[in-house]
This record gives sequence, C-alpha cells and structure tokens, in this order.
Amino acid sequence: MLFHVRMDVAIPHDLDPALRADLLARERARALELQRQGVWVHLWRVVGRYSNISVFEVPDGGALHDLLWSLPLFPYMTIEVTALTAHPSALAENP
Amino acid sequence: MLFHVRMDVAIPHDLDPALRADLLARERARALELQRQGVWVHLWRVVGRYSNISVFEVPDGGALHDLLWSLPLFPYMTIEVTALTAHPSALAENP
Amino acid sequence: MLFHVRMDVAIPHDLDPALRADLLARERARALELQRQGVWVHLWRVVGRYSNISVFEVPDGGALHDLLWSLPLFPYMTIEVTALTAHPSALAENP
Amino acid sequence: MLFHVRMDVAIPHDLDPALRADLLARERARALELQRQGVWVHLWRVVGRYSNISVFEVPDGGALHDLLWSLPLFPYMTIEVTALTAHPSALAENP
Amino acid sequence: MLFHVRMDVAIPHDLDPALRADLLARERARALELQRQGVWVHLWRVVGRYSNISVFEVPDGGALHDLLWSLPLFPYMTIEVTALTAHPSALAENP
Amino acid sequence: MLFHVRMDVAIPHDLDPALRADLLARERARALELQRQGVWVHLWRVVGRYSNISVFEVPDGGALHDLLWSLPLFPYMTIEVTALTAHPSALAENP
Amino acid sequence: MLFHVRMDVAIPHDLDPALRADLLARERARALELQRQGVWVHLWRVVGRYSNISVFEVPDGGALHDLLWSLPLFPYMTIEVTALTAHPSALAENP
Amino acid sequence: MLFHVRMDVAIPHDLDPALRADLLARERARALELQRQGVWVHLWRVVGRYSNISVFEVPDGGALHDLLWSLPLFPYMTIEVTALTAHPSALAENP
Amino acid sequence: MLFHVRMDVAIPHDLDPALRADLLARERARALELQRQGVWVHLWRVVGRYSNISVFEVPDGGALHDLLWSLPLFPYMTIEVTALTAHPSALAENP
Amino acid sequence: MLFHVRMDVAIPHDLDPALRADLLARERARALELQRQGVWVHLWRVVGRYSNISVFEVPDGGALHDLLWSLPLFPYMTIEVTALTAHPSALAENP
Repeated sequence: MLFHVRMDVAIPHDLDPALRADLLARERARALELQRQGVWVHLWRVVGRYSNISVFEVPDGGALHDLLWSLPLFPYMTIEVTALTAHPSALAENP
Repeated sequence: MLFHVRMDVAIPHDLDPALRADLLARERARALELQRQGVWVHLWRVVGRYSNISVFEVPDGGALHDLLWSLPLFPYMTIEVTALTAHPSALAENP
Repeated sequence: MLFHVRMDVAIPHDLDPALRADLLARERARALELQRQGVWVHLWRVVGRYSNISVFEVPDGGALHDLLWSLPLFPYMTIEVTALTAHPSALAENP
Repeated sequence: MLFHVRMDVAIPHDLDPALRADLLARERARALELQRQGVWVHLWRVVGRYSNISVFEVPDGGALHDLLWSLPLFPYMTIEVTALTAHPSALAENP
Repeated sequence: MLFHVRMDVAIPHDLDPALRADLLARERARALELQRQGVWVHLWRVVGRYSNISVFEVPDGGALHDLLWSLPLFPYMTIEVTALTAHPSALAENP
Repeated sequence: MLFHVRMDVAIPHDLDPALRADLLARERARALELQRQGVWVHLWRVVGRYSNISVFEVPDGGALHDLLWSLPLFPYMTIEVTALTAHPSALAENP
Repeated sequence: MLFHVRMDVAIPHDLDPALRADLLARERARALELQRQGVWVHLWRVVGRYSNISVFEVPDGGALHDLLWSLPLFPYMTIEVTALTAHPSALAENP
Repeated sequence: MLFHVRMDVAIPHDLDPALRADLLARERARALELQRQGVWVHLWRVVGRYSNISVFEVPDGGALHDLLWSLPLFPYMTIEVTALTAHPSALAENP
Repeated sequence: MLFHVRMDVAIPHDLDPALRADLLARERARALELQRQGVWVHLWRVVGRYSNISVFEVPDGGALHDLLWSLPLFPYMTIEVTALTAHPSALAENP
Repeated sequence: MLFHVRMDVAIPHDLDPALRADLLARERARALELQRQGVWVHLWRVVGRYSNISVFEVPDGGALHDLLWSLPLFPYMTIEVTALTAHPSALAENP
C-alpha cells in the first residue's frame, strides 16, 4: 500500500563533521537503494527546507516502519506518515 | 515546476443535492482532463478524510493558481500549496 | 494491518430528529457488524466527548478508507488515522 | 478503568551509550512484566515514530501515574493520557 | 478518583429563548444536585469566559462520562478531561 | 481571589544530582508551608506528567506572582495562570 | 488589581441591523461609563482587526468577570484575560 | 511606515449574488485607487488561496486601520498585520 | 504611534552568573531610561511568567525595532509586536 | 516566478564570535549580491524580531531552493516559502 511521508531533518550543529559526512553518505546510498527496489516511489525536496516529501509503496505499516527506523538519519528526523489510497477520480481508476 | 497540493473538502450539509451532484461530476471531469494533459501528475485520497494529496507540474505559480481557482469545488476546499524541487538523492538526479 | 482511528462526531443541532435517529441506528448496526467481522477490533468512548478511539485490522489503507467513508455518520465526523505496527516490547513479539 | 496513553520518546543524542542500553533493557523488561500482569493491555508502535500508543487497565489514575512515573524511560518521554470508557456500540455492551 | 474538567459553553445565538432558559435552569439544578451528592467537588467560573473549571470525584471514567453526557448543556459544550491524582507534596499526603 | 495555576516541570537531564535533590527538597518544604498558610489551596498531580494543577487564594495577582517567582523550581517550570471566580451554580452561591 | 484583556468581536453577518446598531450604541456607552469610573483604564484598537486590547483595574477577578459578562457585545466576543502586576523595572517602582 | 498585511477572504456561500458582485466591484475599485495613491504598495495573490499578501506605506497604524476597516470586504476577511522596517542588508540601505 | 509588545525572557540556565547579573542591571537601567523619555509608556509583569507586556510610543516601526534590538536581553527574548491605534470608544476620542 | 519567503534566524548563543561575525558578513554580502542581480526583489526586517520577510523572483522553485540552501545563515534559519502570483486587482494587471 501507499504512504505519504514527510521527513524534516535537524542535525545538531555540533555533530562531528566526519560522523555527519558518513551519515549523509549512508543515507543517500540507502535512499537510492530503496528507490531502485521500487519501495521509495517518490522523493522530492521541499523548497527552502531541509525536508523531503516522499511516497512509499510497501506491503504494510510494519514494513514502512522498519524501513524508516533503519534510515541512518532517523535519529535526527521528525517523520509524519499519512496513509494514502487510490482516488476515485485518478486516471488509473478511470481507464 | 512541481507543487505539492493538499485539498480538504467541506461541502455544506444543506447544499442542494442536485447542485452537489453537478459540482462533483464537473470536478471529476476536470480532474481527469487535467491528469490527461499531464498537469495534475499525482492524485491520491487521504485515508479516512474527504481530502486529496496531489502533485502538479505547471509552468509557474500563476498557472497553478488559475487551475485551482477554476476547480468546481474550489469554494468548498481549503488548499495548502508547497513548492517542491528535485531531491539530490532522487534516482532521476543519480543516473 | 492495524490502524488507530479517532472519530470526533459533530451532528448539527438543527438536524431533523428522525433523520438523526435513523443515522444513529444505522451507525450502531454497522459498527456491530464490523466488530463481529473482526475488522473493527477495538472501540472505546473518550470520556467527556462525543468521540471514539478505535483500532481496525484491515488488509490495507484502501480497505480502511472504504469502510470509514461508508459509515452513516461519516459526513458528520472528523477522523484522524494513525498507522500502527507491532511494538518490539509487546508480549506477542516476545513469546 | 481504561486509559489510552501515547508516549513519545526523545533520548538525548549524547546520552552515554551504556546508560542508554541499560535504560532500554530495563524499559523492555518492565513493559513485558506489566503486560504479563494484565495492566498494560495493549502496546503498539506508531509507524515512523519513536512512539507507542498503549491502553492500560488500572484501578484508578493514581495507579496509572505511579506506573508511568516509574518507567525507566519516563524522564525522556512526553506522555499524553486520555480516559476511556465502554462505548455503547461496542460488542461487549451488546451481547 | 479525581478528574479535572474544563467546560466551554457555546449556545447558538438563534436558539429559542424559552428552550435556552429551560436548558439553563435544568443545568443549574443538575449541577447543584451533583455538588450536593459530593460528586461535583469544585465548580469555578473562568474569568471573562462562558466556561467553568471543575473537579469531579467519581468511581471511574465511565461514571464521569455518563454524568457529563447527561448534562442538559452537553450538546453545547466542549469538554476537556484531565485525570488527577494525589500530589506527593500535598498536605493530605504529609500529615 | 482565586487563581488556577498549572505548572509543568522540566529539569535539565544534566543538572547536578545534589543540586537537583536540594531544589526538590526546598520546593516540597515551600509547597507544604504555603498550603499550611491556606494560600496554596489545592495541589493535584496530573496523571502521567511531571506537572501539577493548583488553586491559590491570594489577595491579588501581585501576591501570586511573588509567590510563584520565589518557588525553588520556578526557573525550571512553565506556568499558566487562569483567573477564577465564584460560579453562579456553585453550592456556596446557593445556600 | 490589573488585568490585561483582549476582546475579539465577531458579530454574525445576518444579525438584524437595528439590533446590531443598538448593541453597538450600548457597548459604546458602557465602555465610556467604565472608563469614566476609572475601571477600564486603557482601551486600544488592534490595527486591522475588530478587536481591542484593554487594561482593567478592579478589586478582583470576580469584579472583572461581572463587568465583562454584562457588556452588550459579550455574547459575540472571544475574551482572553491575563493577570498583570507591577514590573520591578517600572518607573512607579523606582521613584 | 511599512506594514505587511495578509488578508484571507471568506465570503459566505449563501450571500446574495448581486450583493457579492457589488462588494467585489467596490473592493477592486478601492484597491486600485489606493495603489494609485501609493499607499497600497504591493498586492500579490497567494497561490491556491482566496488570500492576498500586501505591503502598505502609511503615516502610522491608525491610517492603516482606517484604510483596512473601510474596505468593502473587511467584514469577510481575517487580516494579519506585521510591522516592517528597513533591513540593514537591503540595497537601499547600502548605496 | 503606539505598539503593544510582549517579551518572554528565557535566559539559559548555564549562563555565567556575572554575565547574567550584568545583563539584568543594564536591561533595568535601559528600561528606566526609556520610560523616563516617555517612549516605553507602560511596562507590566505577566503574573507567573518571566514576561512583560508593554506599550511603546515611537515615531514608527523602525524606531521601535532599533530600540528593542538594542535591549541587553534582546538575544534571550521572544518578542511579539502588535500595532495599536486609538479606539473609537476610548475616552480620549470622546471628550 | 515570485515567492514570498520569511526567514527567522536563531544563532546559538555559544557560537564562536569570530565564526559568527564571518557568517554575518558573508550573509550580508550574498544578500546584496542577489539583490543587485534582481533575484532578491524585496528584503524587509520584521519589527522586534531577528527575522526578515522577502520576495524573490526566480525561474522556478528549484532555483529558489538552491539560492536559500547556499545562504551562509541557512543552517541557523527557519524558512517558510509561499508561492505568489499576480493579483487581478493589482495595478500592473489593470493598466
């Protein structure tokens, strides 16, 4: 099923730069991996913010939670999850 | 450019049923038309709400405003617009 | 999967009493039916409010949405949906 | 009586790792113990958050407070308590 | 057990004056009755508001809910319930 | 006159334990003293929180402020003050 | 003692014009009377709003409540009361 | 001086269409007049909303209030005023 | 013109005591000076808070900003500014 | 297209003074440069706040994001972006 996810990132200013660089590199690698697997379906940047708006397609809420919990930046993010479903006026529902 | 749009619908309970039915039919037709034109790129239902989360691809904010303002349900919706841009970790940015 | 759902009811004071009584009777019948089917897993009253807190077990978000959308009181409720999953410290996860 | 409790956990990033591990182990042990006693009736994870939604069955508010106050993670949690009662449309009320 | 209850009253401006007067008279009679029974322990007016802050002593949340739900003004009030317990620094706890 | 006061305590996790213990002992002693003087009329714990809800009877707002400002925990509390007055349906007003 | 009071006025659009005019005339007369008595010490308009910010000097909260409750516009206002006291850096405290 | 003003318009759905058309025509004429006078310095539409964000240059707050209060749509708008001043990094301050 | 200003002070607990004492002494001296100049017209303490509510009479917003920005405690305060003007029912407007 | 941007600055109190001075000098230089390029169209100070309200004219949201993200103070600012478009009653639309 589909979930809409907003992630707001707040890395402490005094985090060790090497640790920070490592976190960001691992986050990026993981994001690309999940996109290639077709799980992280959309990933957009919110203009003017250190935030993204994403859409995930996962079997259920547990799968989404495991995935988000294991993101390298998880401890530094505030995450808001909204369950989505097909809209009756969407093109895919009106072939 | 891309915009994230959330629309929350609140049609008054005492709206004339024929007027209501006409509004909904025209809204649906317009939504399908804009999707076919590639402008209304994504349209999802928020689970448990009379709301949608959408993504539009338009030349600029003025084009988006004209489009939203002319939706048949516009007078009955609260609309929240968020500007999006490409995320550096998105697949399309990392070919 | 599991969803936590809070429903706050606000029926207009001037709704026709017969219509109101009919709505409430149908809502109650539907709630009992969904509980008997094992879909509406928990249903509690919030003390001091015309509100309930519920837990649903459904195949996915779409199933939950169809179910909530078709409740007789849906047009008079504000509904907030939160996706749940198993907690690692829950008894069921620690047999 | 029944209480609905949401706990949002925020452990400081710079907490000593050994202290943190000890806290988490004791919290888990205590949660399991209270579930086995039939006091912590439900314990779910909120998808995408370091949070849980729980239901407790306790003699009264004082018993609930003592129990929450003594949780190892209490100093690191924001807790919101909502009193629940039987819903007139719940199955148990309509045998 | 003890509950802290805030009630904010909002009677529609166009309510029939006779109905309004009857509601207020019955609310007042009921409030006095519950105070005499020792259930509605404290009842204060919030300065500048059509609101009260109250403390109830009841066997449990269900008893409080039945009591509040049956108040004549219930349909016109927003009610916020907070569970209370003895404070370790209260005089009664330190004889 | 009467004031309703809610105090939410947030002592920093890294406060020196001896200083913390001293603060708490002095706060408790002061709370008991003010209750014995009949100034701090009610003191309840909010279930699940490091918070209290209190009622003070003082000559005026200045007296209340001096009293709160001098509490040992004042620098670590967020305090919300609400002015109260007699409710026309209170028992004391309807002898 | 002193109270800071903000009043936000929201008169229904469909109120009978004669009733409205009468309300406003009586409100104005009462405001002038209370200012002349030295009770309504300050009365300012908030720029761009149908709101005022006022300061009252009254014996206590009960006196303020009776005064506000009896204002002709009371049923159409949202009122927020904040207790004030002398500031230690105010000129009057530093002669 | 400069003021930033946001106006959110909410005209009731059942307002008489002729009255509505008249209001809008007079609002538009007045907005153009004030812009020609150099008082209403900027006027932008918020994308997706029946709202504008404006900047006014007026002698003082009283002048702004009189101007806003007399707008034909004033009774149907929520207005938020923010005082502005020259920014030290603005071009005009750094010739 | 007149501005209503609320200042909420939050000095870090670990600020050097000598620096803190110096800040407070300079803030107090500056507040007295501005009151003597007739610029800081009113200064009240909010009961139960480290906050003040003030009224300033200044030529314009720029003058107010320069004044607030240069207060010794400015870096430790959250300041909310509201533009005021004469109220048509104020005594001064109705001689 | 046009974007309305509000930036609220919160530099940590304990930031190294030399680093702080460098940040501010670079921020100022960059702001002036972008204004000279006609991209940062308006820049105002919010009275009483370490905040600005700005208007940018950029090709699209991506251009705005790159620009804001690269501001020296970006890590210390909370930024809120609102898309603007021409208002039908603006002078420029009514030649």
